[in-house]
Amino acid sequence: MIVLFTDFGSRDPYVGQVKARLATVAPGVPVIDLLHEVPDFNPHAGAHLLAALAGGFPPGAVFLAVVDPGVGTPRGSVVMQACGRWYVGPDNGLLSVVAARAPDTRLWRITWRPEVLSATFHGRDLFAPVAAALARGDFPQERLDGVDALGVEFDAGDLPRIIYVDHYGNAWTGVRGEPSVARVRAAGREFARGDCFAAVEKGHGLWFVNSVGLIELAVNRGSAAATYGLRVGDRVDVERAS
Amino acid sequence: MIVLFTDFGSRDPYVGQVKARLATVAPGVPVIDLLHEVPDFNPHAGAHLLAALAGGFPPGAVFLAVVDPGVGTPRGSVVMQACGRWYVGPDNGLLSVVAARAPDTRLWRITWRPEVLSATFHGRDLFAPVAAALARGDFPQERLDGVDALGVEFDAGDLPRIIYVDHYGNAWTGVRGEPSVARVRAAGREFARGDCFAAVEKGHGLWFVNSVGLIELAVNRGSAAATYGLRVGDRVDVERAS
Amino acid sequence: MIVLFTDFGSRDPYVGQVKARLATVAPGVPVIDLLHEVPDFNPHAGAHLLAALAGGFPPGAVFLAVVDPGVGTPRGSVVMQACGRWYVGPDNGLLSVVAARAPDTRLWRITWRPEVLSATFHGRDLFAPVAAALARGDFPQERLDGVDALGVEFDAGDLPRIIYVDHYGNAWTGVRGEPSVARVRAAGREFARGDCFAAVEKGHGLWFVNSVGLIELAVNRGSAAATYGLRVGDRVDVERAS
Repeated sequence: MIVLFTDFGSRDPYVGQVKARLATVAPGVPVIDLLHEVPDFNPHAGAHLLAALAGGFPPGAVFLAVVDPGVGTPRGSVVMQACGRWYVGPDNGLLSVVAARAPDTRLWRITWRPEVLSATFHGRDLFAPVAAALARGDFPQERLDGVDALGVEFDAGDLPRIIYVDHYGNAWTGVRGEPSVARVRAAGREFARGDCFAAVEKGHGLWFVNSVGLIELAVNRGSAAATYGLRVGDRVDVERAS
Repeated sequence: MIVLFTDFGSRDPYVGQVKARLATVAPGVPVIDLLHEVPDFNPHAGAHLLAALAGGFPPGAVFLAVVDPGVGTPRGSVVMQACGRWYVGPDNGLLSVVAARAPDTRLWRITWRPEVLSATFHGRDLFAPVAAALARGDFPQERLDGVDALGVEFDAGDLPRIIYVDHYGNAWTGVRGEPSVARVRAAGREFARGDCFAAVEKGHGLWFVNSVGLIELAVNRGSAAATYGLRVGDRVDVERAS
Repeated sequence: MIVLFTDFGSRDPYVGQVKARLATVAPGVPVIDLLHEVPDFNPHAGAHLLAALAGGFPPGAVFLAVVDPGVGTPRGSVVMQACGRWYVGPDNGLLSVVAARAPDTRLWRITWRPEVLSATFHGRDLFAPVAAALARGDFPQERLDGVDALGVEFDAGDLPRIIYVDHYGNAWTGVRGEPSVARVRAAGREFARGDCFAAVEKGHGLWFVNSVGLIELAVNRGSAAATYGLRVGDRVDVERAS
């Protein structure tokens, strides 16, 4: 299974070009569109989203993870194995939260360059062929060079900011919903805790631990983003019970 | 064939998580994204959309139909067979127009609960595994309990409101385009009848019977929604010849 | 491989209906969503987009190419073979730039009409079954009539206008990035040339030859469309070195 996690946009002609490449190299391998709206130009938010989402995918899944505003510069490109899953993408931090939290990460730099390599679309030209080879079960040894560490590293901790706003207007934070969490504040107000949207009255706000384990802010049958002006990057204050 | 009909959003990371679950339980079964923008929090409009669209799919198709603002509350979850097609989703009205119009509906309540059941994403955790089992041809008898009726029922009649606005700005109504329809009014004006967009001059409005049999309001090479301020929920007056 | 290139919208229930039809006629054939946001009602921009994108797909690929504001009028419908690829769509100019640039175009008019043909959705009812037959390897001779030329013809030259704006706000032009290109002006200003986004400072504009060979306007880590007010149809002035 190849899982696409990018900022290529779900409405643009980039994902289709990647899929055509994957279908040519790894015909018959299922391709899952996980997210193509990772916040633009923001590998930090993307790294926390990826770490939260990846756990739901089976061992052997190959993530093609590309948020790459530095494409065409000398930033590195890597293959990573962590918790039985594979990751292919730029070495700009996007894979670094998964790496920091995994007990058993293995890393390779992609040294191969395809015959035709555009300056702005390594997702299609460089990362897709490598991901397709992995998904087919052919470890592309001759295209890779083992390395000890990522060039850009993040720590394993949470990111106390809004990292994603969905089409309902629900705002995901980069903070995991541990049982110790006692109070959540954002946009200058404290949110009530709820277990599901209907835990509060229609139009009221709440925080809950979402289906991938992150603290999320929502409004029952409404938009938290519109109601409270929440945007990706906004700070969130999470207080833990002592 | 599994057909997805949800309000999960075509740009958010929800559909991909559902598909990963489906691919694990029912590998190789084709999955069709029919609609992920059913009007949010609006099972009534969704029920009429589903009833209009389902007829175009072959017998044996399994609809994973989820618009579920009450997820996490005690609302029921059901499997329905109607006209040879299967439907899996919440018992909140979303399946109730299909049910009311079918001559031969069979119904089961989903009594099974998965080991891990998030409070806010039953589409992934509860409905997807059941739909995948059905699509694989394994009727999950041990997870179901036959029932006589849905908890939320709608009648078989039309819904004289806007139920969907597409990206062109065309507005679908919940009224079927019977030959007896004589006049259609919305937004304080009467629409001319056309057989295709070009039946009226560029920029002019028309109503026509759309490709799934509903009365639809459009503007030739323009947006009816923008031109007339039409939104989901707006009333439409349809007069029939006597 | 069937490649979808339409203005049906990536969020609307049109693509899913087409895919259900394709899955019925050509089960197991991979279907790639290349673009469903071809500028509405604009076969001219679409024709240049298609010509730029098609080259990346393998021989034998079948393009279902539909931007069809004249659906339901007597405009023709065609099958075209060019450079080993197949194209199925309306005869309204959408295929005409591919045709003009190919050395070896073959053309057929679609004379077949399905039992049920809606007035507004030939993509589903007419073009999809023909494309599926081609993709399955069954040339549908009895549905086609060889013709010598398209009804609507464009020349092989470039289109010096914005033909697409992506979700980053990057603006694609219809001008191919030949080495002779020396200066690019749009929105009353000259753009600097860059090889990748990071070639200019954050927030600054640039032009580059994009991954499908067209001149594209962008802003490093920003939106060219928002910064300069660029929209589909805007003129671009490209000066060549003499």
